[in-house]
Amino acid sequence: MERIMMAHGSGGRLSHELIRTLFQKYLGNPYLDQMNDATVLPGRENIAVTTDSFVVSPLFFRGGNIGKLAVCGTVNDLAVSGAIPKFLTLALILEEGLPMADLERIIKSVAETASEAGVSVVCGDTKVVERGSVDKIFINTTGIGYITNRLVGPERIRPGDEILITGTIGDHGIAILSEREGLEFQTPVVSDCAPLNGLIDAFFRPGVKCMRDPTRGGVATTLNELAGQAGVSMLLDEKQFPLTPSVAGACEMLGLEPLYLANEGKALVIVAPEVAGEVLQKMRAHPLGRQAVRIGRVEEGKPGLVLLETPLGGKRIIGMLEGEHLPRIC
Amino acid sequence: MERIMMAHGSGGRLSHELIRTLFQKYLGNPYLDQMNDATVLPGRENIAVTTDSFVVSPLFFRGGNIGKLAVCGTVNDLAVSGAIPKFLTLALILEEGLPMADLERIIKSVAETASEAGVSVVCGDTKVVERGSVDKIFINTTGIGYITNRLVGPERIRPGDEILITGTIGDHGIAILSEREGLEFQTPVVSDCAPLNGLIDAFFRPGVKCMRDPTRGGVATTLNELAGQAGVSMLLDEKQFPLTPSVAGACEMLGLEPLYLANEGKALVIVAPEVAGEVLQKMRAHPLGRQAVRIGRVEEGKPGLVLLETPLGGKRIIGMLEGEHLPRIC
Repeated sequence: MERIMMAHGSGGRLSHELIRTLFQKYLGNPYLDQMNDATVLPGRENIAVTTDSFVVSPLFFRGGNIGKLAVCGTVNDLAVSGAIPKFLTLALILEEGLPMADLERIIKSVAETASEAGVSVVCGDTKVVERGSVDKIFINTTGIGYITNRLVGPERIRPGDEILITGTIGDHGIAILSEREGLEFQTPVVSDCAPLNGLIDAFFRPGVKCMRDPTRGGVATTLNELAGQAGVSMLLDEKQFPLTPSVAGACEMLGLEPLYLANEGKALVIVAPEVAGEVLQKMRAHPLGRQAVRIGRVEEGKPGLVLLETPLGGKRIIGMLEGEHLPRIC
Repeated sequence: MERIMMAHGSGGRLSHELIRTLFQKYLGNPYLDQMNDATVLPGRENIAVTTDSFVVSPLFFRGGNIGKLAVCGTVNDLAVSGAIPKFLTLALILEEGLPMADLERIIKSVAETASEAGVSVVCGDTKVVERGSVDKIFINTTGIGYITNRLVGPERIRPGDEILITGTIGDHGIAILSEREGLEFQTPVVSDCAPLNGLIDAFFRPGVKCMRDPTRGGVATTLNELAGQAGVSMLLDEKQFPLTPSVAGACEMLGLEPLYLANEGKALVIVAPEVAGEVLQKMRAHPLGRQAVRIGRVEEGKPGLVLLETPLGGKRIIGMLEGEHLPRIC
């Protein structure tokens, strides 16, 4: 069959066929193959769990697609929490008429990215709704990880700590925007969409206090959350922000602030000053952290305040994202 | 604000407000209140996990709504697997313009049902898409449970075992259908939507071999799956099927086979013959199992074959659901 039909979501014969010919074919593993109402997994004394739905439009973009994004987004939420990502659930809502080839491409991408990140898809669900009731395909991934001795969290942040980022900012946001608006750049902007657990394994050491992936709302919103939770101020240095020339150009042209653009393969990492150099070095030695830099520091001051030092020496307050600039970025 | 706006899904200020004024207000608990990228939970040596998306239409129906259904569906998948449901994740995809009052009613219902089932909502996600990109609201719930010493599964089923059901069949399917088609019955059909873990706690004992909740695809499809996985035949006795008069009348009028209708508060339970009486007694002593009956038995024979014995003594093969009779039932 070339297109998804309502009966693929019936729970009946066609649902079973889809499971066998697509999900088990690409994603099969001993957990998924249990094929019961719930999957039994090896646990730990403490586990980490996170959930995310993905509604990105368009489905396919430079550097990824909704399937890759769904795996990366959930793996990264676990990894920045100090957990080892282990298991994913995969729930699909499909629009009647979706080309089977698109679904197959997405599922292949889920399989490849899960394999890269070292996680298994352990159970799933497929619903099909009538044409017009959903825009092509939405995906939910829920992730389960094992808690490690990586104790991280905003409550560990102290004045004097340094704020690092693992690479350029805004790539995912501009990649989606340019795809949607048909913008052309001399060097096309590619989404940074990537699983970060390997990078984090490479640089993590005691002295790393807190990690977050600045997705929706961007670096600005994430740092506002952290500064609020930690009860500290933060001072960012604008001239340190790593931007590709295309992203910098697009932001200038469109009047966008890169600090609010979504990233899907970057981590903000707050570290004690004495380990900052060592952590940066390890980041830069990893393919996903080559352009890691220090972008600011934690200060005493009004809790929750994030200030930006401009190249001319001025300071301005950077708040949370207001409104919605770029919907359906993830 | 009276309606959901795109900015409620931005990850920025309005997203935070929605979390505080709605999700934390109704669902708050120490796990959810961690408010990190992932939630840390107490684990066990083995855990059970299941995921389901809910796209039911209409959102509100006699006996429940999409929020109650999302909790019940996931709790029940864990409970019939022999696990103790503990934690739920809750991911919402909202259509721009959704009345805030509808969302609040749904979230209140999630809270009440989670409380009834003894589970905590531990993390969540909210996406908002433009008008027309989703039909009002879709919900994903992923559930995590603790594995118990309740060893159940189709591989334990043997010829001679008895097939029980905890009550009337087809109520959810007909409730949704009548809501959608504006059908009126003398006694309105109410969805059976309910969390089953309490009922299962009440009747479970050694000798219970396998449990399933016959949702999409109904009793027929579920028993076909089990018969196939167990490599046995099953013989059902049509005159034993418990049907409310309204469901029986609706099926007759509309030419529907109740065996294929969805249930959202029933379990199929396969037991060793020597405990069948005792299990039925315990079921009937519980409010959700008053109409529990034996509907058939497991036989040697062609693996996967499910036969129905009609009141006139004939036998016919009952296959899996073909096509899709009633889309968006859950």
